[in-house]
Amino acid sequence: MRVFAGLWGGWLFCLAWVGVFGRAQSIFAHPRLYAASRPDSSRLVGLRAYRTCYIAQKIDHFGFAEDRTFKQRYLIADQHWKKDTGTILFYTGNEGDIAWFANNTGFMWNVAEELDAILVFAEHRYYGESLPFGNKSYTDAKHLNYLTSQQALADFAVLIQHLKNTIPGTQNTPVIAIGGSYGGMLAAWFRMKYPHVVIGALAASAPIWQFDSLVPCGSFHKIVTEDFKKSGIGCSETIRNSWAAIKRIADTEKGLQWLSHTFRLCSPLKTTTDLITFRESLRSTWIYVAMVDYPYEAAFLQPLPAWPVKVICKYLTKPKLPD
Amino acid sequence: MRVFAGLWGGWLFCLAWVGVFGRAQSIFAHPRLYAASRPDSSRLVGLRAYRTCYIAQKIDHFGFAEDRTFKQRYLIADQHWKKDTGTILFYTGNEGDIAWFANNTGFMWNVAEELDAILVFAEHRYYGESLPFGNKSYTDAKHLNYLTSQQALADFAVLIQHLKNTIPGTQNTPVIAIGGSYGGMLAAWFRMKYPHVVIGALAASAPIWQFDSLVPCGSFHKIVTEDFKKSGIGCSETIRNSWAAIKRIADTEKGLQWLSHTFRLCSPLKTTTDLITFRESLRSTWIYVAMVDYPYEAAFLQPLPAWPVKVICKYLTKPKLPD
Repeated sequence: MRVFAGLWGGWLFCLAWVGVFGRAQSIFAHPRLYAASRPDSSRLVGLRAYRTCYIAQKIDHFGFAEDRTFKQRYLIADQHWKKDTGTILFYTGNEGDIAWFANNTGFMWNVAEELDAILVFAEHRYYGESLPFGNKSYTDAKHLNYLTSQQALADFAVLIQHLKNTIPGTQNTPVIAIGGSYGGMLAAWFRMKYPHVVIGALAASAPIWQFDSLVPCGSFHKIVTEDFKKSGIGCSETIRNSWAAIKRIADTEKGLQWLSHTFRLCSPLKTTTDLITFRESLRSTWIYVAMVDYPYEAAFLQPLPAWPVKVICKYLTKPKLPD
Repeated sequence: MRVFAGLWGGWLFCLAWVGVFGRAQSIFAHPRLYAASRPDSSRLVGLRAYRTCYIAQKIDHFGFAEDRTFKQRYLIADQHWKKDTGTILFYTGNEGDIAWFANNTGFMWNVAEELDAILVFAEHRYYGESLPFGNKSYTDAKHLNYLTSQQALADFAVLIQHLKNTIPGTQNTPVIAIGGSYGGMLAAWFRMKYPHVVIGALAASAPIWQFDSLVPCGSFHKIVTEDFKKSGIGCSETIRNSWAAIKRIADTEKGLQWLSHTFRLCSPLKTTTDLITFRESLRSTWIYVAMVDYPYEAAFLQPLPAWPVKVICKYLTKPKLPD
């Protein structure tokens, strides 16, 4: 079970190993659609052909003192588009390069034909190529001021209006927002805040309640633990006991050397800070594997087998093993 | 017929002549409710008792670089509030001092008892006492940057949450937004953008389509003309013919003197600019009278009889009269 349980979560990142990239097209071009693919011949199981476009967006949708614009990137694929029966599936980009998400959101590619759909993948401002202030975007709070979900949603609304105004036959085409994780929160909020722009939203693995005072602060980690508990006898308990074992072993110089060697660390563990960093990296590993615990072989964050947590748990069956 | 025709428009500003004001209460006080009235004994027909409160609001709801707050004023009246059956009627303040609107929105006072309602009148930022930067608020674009409808709606949402958190028994009380004119647009948009905060909105005389490219640009003035057309035979035609008549009369020195004297102008008409200003003031008069063409005696902008356009039209029955 993946960490952010969503009905469609399992589908969302499927076919993650099919890497096919579109060619960048002229800036601000109207979205004249055609295929532009560079198939990953080694593991190709489907066609991921899109073209890259850009739209000028206001840096600030909610004030007028900052009246400059920036270029937002979006990817578009219309191989299956049919004017009279079609749909626009609009991916509300999350925190990363949009090409990465486009190539790891198999669900949209899988349903495109059935829905006669145009696929649109919109990049989130401040990520990938969509930098409001170019390479200065992250320099200070002043430049980062426009990195908010509200501004991102406004970008999406403007982009959809632009698409409908420029792609013939889409004026009355229904638009469905689709997103995963933080992008799934955006998809849900997009439907709430712009109900006239999208007729529905599919929020996959989206922790929309994951805020202080809405859910207990331990909820996330409890679900991670639950994943390991369900994936093998003694698995979760073995990991739980490992923290104290690491502490005991790290108590001696010889133990530290053993840890450094066994985990193939780049530099040997020496200080308390080193040890905290080491434990933190282990903790992150368990969390991230739980997050990509897909039922099929995939490579969203790293190449992994199907049900990676189960695979790990095969090696973690003896919680009572001595140090 | 009023200019911005809304089903409830006629009710919205009724009882406008009843001036009763609340006493200002301590800043940031929790809304402990009680009556505080100063009746206008001369024309009292109902009790308009409210108390004045303030809430700290973010100057910018959509960024974090500007992290200061300002005091937003709101008025509250709970004479008829009943915990189990009650409603919160929330006036989405428009461009002016909120006390003025509270004292000219008879509809809310009229239905308060029937709905066991708490009345809340929220002042719009940058108006009345709700100035984000005090007396510097209007100095330049930098200070005016946060005067947008989006920021105003966010203020309203924060205020309603604050009320529900601090007035015992209101946690699950339904809230209905009510507004007129621009404030009616805010009420409608509030329901669209914050559907989880208000269960409904009453947008009275609200020109929510009155934007470039949504309606023909002459729509507003056509409705004004229509009002005069319907209010007396020859009325609209007389006004239409007056513009050419004024031009002919203004062609001579004697005519200008006559106009200045007849209309009791503070300084005599001399230049072409003077004449344009004069015609503009007449034009404004017709527009504003149409806007306050209530079916009862009222004093929203100026003291006026019932159906003031009809009263005016009694004097404008002869469009063919010579100069």
